[in-house]
Amino acid sequence: MASIKYEVIENIGVLSTNKSGWQRELNLVSWNDRPPKFDLRDWSEDHEKMGKGLTLTNEELSKLKEILNDM
Amino acid sequence: MASIKYEVIENIGVLSTNKSGWQRELNLVSWNDRPPKFDLRDWSEDHEKMGKGLTLTNEELSKLKEILNDM
Repeated sequence: MASIKYEVIENIGVLSTNKSGWQRELNLVSWNDRPPKFDLRDWSEDHEKMGKGLTLTNEELSKLKEILNDM
Repeated sequence: MASIKYEVIENIGVLSTNKSGWQRELNLVSWNDRPPKFDLRDWSEDHEKMGKGLTLTNEELSKLKEILNDM
């Protein structure tokens, strides 16, 4: 079976926690030993299981910050 | 075939545009006529096709703003 290698390099923040203990987090994640990217995603408590999410570039993250501060 | 009814109520901002014209956007989207929710997602230029994304609660969005401003 194919597998994705990943490492959560830095936990930047937690947006929410649901009833099952899964957390929606902003992290720096390295995928397949590549340089880490920002990643907004749902994770199980132990980071063993991941849910849906988005990988964001530096530019997208700073643009998102601008947008949120302009709201 | 099953379908999802959705309406982009407000385009809050664009994070990026890729070579194919798809945009990563923060929107207020109403799904199946329910009250609109914040939604971070990839969309084709005409909003006819959607890619992966996350629906965010008000609380998650304001927490995300806090996190980004603390970085």
